[in-house]
Amino acid sequence: MRELEERILKDGRVLPGEVLKVDRFLNHQVDPDLMFQIGTAFAHKFQDAGVTKILTVESSGIAPAVMAGLAMHVPVVFARKHKSVTLIDDLYTAEVYSYTKKTSNHISIAKKFLSATDHVLLIDDFLANGQAVQGLFEICDQAQATVAGVGIVIEKVFQTGHQLVEDRGVRLESLAQITSFEGDRVHFASEKTTD
Amino acid sequence: MRELEERILKDGRVLPGEVLKVDRFLNHQVDPDLMFQIGTAFAHKFQDAGVTKILTVESSGIAPAVMAGLAMHVPVVFARKHKSVTLIDDLYTAEVYSYTKKTSNHISIAKKFLSATDHVLLIDDFLANGQAVQGLFEICDQAQATVAGVGIVIEKVFQTGHQLVEDRGVRLESLAQITSFEGDRVHFASEKTTD
Repeated sequence: MRELEERILKDGRVLPGEVLKVDRFLNHQVDPDLMFQIGTAFAHKFQDAGVTKILTVESSGIAPAVMAGLAMHVPVVFARKHKSVTLIDDLYTAEVYSYTKKTSNHISIAKKFLSATDHVLLIDDFLANGQAVQGLFEICDQAQATVAGVGIVIEKVFQTGHQLVEDRGVRLESLAQITSFEGDRVHFASEKTTD
Repeated sequence: MRELEERILKDGRVLPGEVLKVDRFLNHQVDPDLMFQIGTAFAHKFQDAGVTKILTVESSGIAPAVMAGLAMHVPVVFARKHKSVTLIDDLYTAEVYSYTKKTSNHISIAKKFLSATDHVLLIDDFLANGQAVQGLFEICDQAQATVAGVGIVIEKVFQTGHQLVEDRGVRLESLAQITSFEGDRVHFASEKTTD
């Protein structure tokens, strides 16, 4: 998605450790008009996937997920993060390790919001090591729901998350695919090789 | 806002302690179309307030805030919650006590996203004791930003938050004003007294 790539080049910052900081428009300050375009792009890509529900994780996933839900007219559920989880009968839970923060969190959703008849579109702001998406897969499995696809705003294709989604055999659509960082420069998969 | 009140009556649940559970459409599962109507309603109410930025708190405030931002074409910043905060130079922070969870959190935003020239619309899903809004006031004060107004999805007018906003002299617009609970019944300020 061209507008997104241009925005990353304009407002993103590359930090040590191949971290891309996009807090100017995506995950701290949010540009609602860009989010609307992002939601519309997801709706277009998954228009034939029979999506009945969108699932994401708080907090950074909420804005793109809700905009996709608006464009697709389906409900959005955001999983909540907890430091620990006491097993409660009415929750689906999974453990998610964050490589950035070097901590484990549990994520959970209320069982009543996901069922075996659902075709779920998973949406998140980033795909890197794929730990959050893996946690959402586990929650869908517990509910026996079908994963209809994975929609990612920014993907770092050189990390392990891409393969993890492919191994599951699920369709992955990322609106910006970063292939590498070169100093503070960002390279996208969409670039011509002759650049 | 009539659609919102009807939705509260249909899908809300009153729990002991005057707690209204609205996780079916507002703060766990989210109805994006209703959120869009909510955002549009806020934009209409504050159209003459000169709003330059919307400020909310993760996670439940994000969906209504982003939809208001979409309707008003202004950026949205969501404050992050932390258990504790090590004072960092580039953050505005405030302490927020949650009466529901009986714990204190710190909320923070990066200084670069709020300045003395901003006219800020504060948006949140609930106004009860007003602790979150008070924290956002403090953050605006630290930035010397002007609070242009407070937009609340559901207000419990019989709790202390309403007075807190009034004492500050800031305009408050709540889309559903709950005046009392009677068993599992919800009463709104919009009801005719002859009911």
